[in-house]
Amino acid sequence: MTFKASVLTLYPQMFPGSLGHSLAGRALQRNDWSLDVVQIRDFATDKHRTVDDTPAGGGAGMVLRADVLGRAIDHTSSKGDTRPRLLMSPRGKPLTQNRVRDLATGAGIVIVCGRFEGVDQRVIEGRDLEEVSIGDYILSGGEVAANVVLDAIIRLLPGVMGNEVSGKFESFENNLLEHPHYTRPAEWEGRRIPEILTSGDHSRVAQWQREQAEELTRKRRPDLIDDDG
Amino acid sequence: MTFKASVLTLYPQMFPGSLGHSLAGRALQRNDWSLDVVQIRDFATDKHRTVDDTPAGGGAGMVLRADVLGRAIDHTSSKGDTRPRLLMSPRGKPLTQNRVRDLATGAGIVIVCGRFEGVDQRVIEGRDLEEVSIGDYILSGGEVAANVVLDAIIRLLPGVMGNEVSGKFESFENNLLEHPHYTRPAEWEGRRIPEILTSGDHSRVAQWQREQAEELTRKRRPDLIDDDG
Repeated sequence: MTFKASVLTLYPQMFPGSLGHSLAGRALQRNDWSLDVVQIRDFATDKHRTVDDTPAGGGAGMVLRADVLGRAIDHTSSKGDTRPRLLMSPRGKPLTQNRVRDLATGAGIVIVCGRFEGVDQRVIEGRDLEEVSIGDYILSGGEVAANVVLDAIIRLLPGVMGNEVSGKFESFENNLLEHPHYTRPAEWEGRRIPEILTSGDHSRVAQWQREQAEELTRKRRPDLIDDDG
Repeated sequence: MTFKASVLTLYPQMFPGSLGHSLAGRALQRNDWSLDVVQIRDFATDKHRTVDDTPAGGGAGMVLRADVLGRAIDHTSSKGDTRPRLLMSPRGKPLTQNRVRDLATGAGIVIVCGRFEGVDQRVIEGRDLEEVSIGDYILSGGEVAANVVLDAIIRLLPGVMGNEVSGKFESFENNLLEHPHYTRPAEWEGRRIPEILTSGDHSRVAQWQREQAEELTRKRRPDLIDDDG
């Protein structure tokens, strides 16, 4: 079954962008997922095709209008559509790998790319938009963030990575960062691969990798371990 | 002065991607920033142009070779180059808006896009690569993450947003998420703009916005408030 992605944006030319290449691009060609890009501006009704206006209460920037975006959403996602509707926003709930896995098992996703100062709060409430943030930094708009959400989902869709992904130790599985990796050559600029990794003793290798992962996580991301407790 | 970005990747066709449009694209045309995309594969030395090999100690996936990536980095960033070198990786330190601001005041950035199972640890150490993560989820590669880092930086470069950005209340300033926004029409589907915002009383508006920001942050991101203490 094809995973259906709809993206609402003022910059449709940004899509598929990097998602048209590599893993996601090949999956798009195979129809493992489909992409429907909707220009929000097409749902403006005045002759200037206005989509934004000044914020109520004053202040800098412009706000995306509830009526225009509401019409764009209704056109893209009708009443029977069960796909979750995300609004990419730094105010949102942080995206996690668990959430990505949930999304990848669904029928698809509707993503609204925020722009300007923000989106009128009434359309967030009136159209059940779920505000999602990809991290604690500010982007020029939601388009780059939508790319991140889609890339993370697509690699988990059936057939996209095949067996490559199954059973693999990855960062955030077990709330641990991944252990260090090494490959040939055995020596590079005087640095050798740790001996234990070439010992052929699989249980010692596994134990070393686990210890390394735990040590790195304690040092770099103690918050992941706290969350586990 | 032009901010110099160099990106090392196995998928150069992914760049500038979405960064070629809108704010970042116009800034690129104006030469507010420059983009140098380096194909890591050009630094392989065998006839198959091999860049990866199986992980020492066994396991799934492939590891990017230290020697090949080392040569690509040396070609891109010579000894006198003071630009920070980032490796996009889920094992990295989480990107924050403070870090973005620091990066935006520098001469530029060198970004290595991780792929496969990982990068040989020896080149991370031998070339002072700083592992940076854009969030707690797994991407198909570092390219999409590099886009995020660059987009966040570029909007802060001198001249890119001009006065639009200055003095604006944004999420993560003061460790608060941004308050809700409203604009015309005054009523939409029976929902009205909160009266206080149309009262013309600027100090009450400011107080309301501050209270809303605090309430949303407490509810959605209590971790931001804890960090403040």
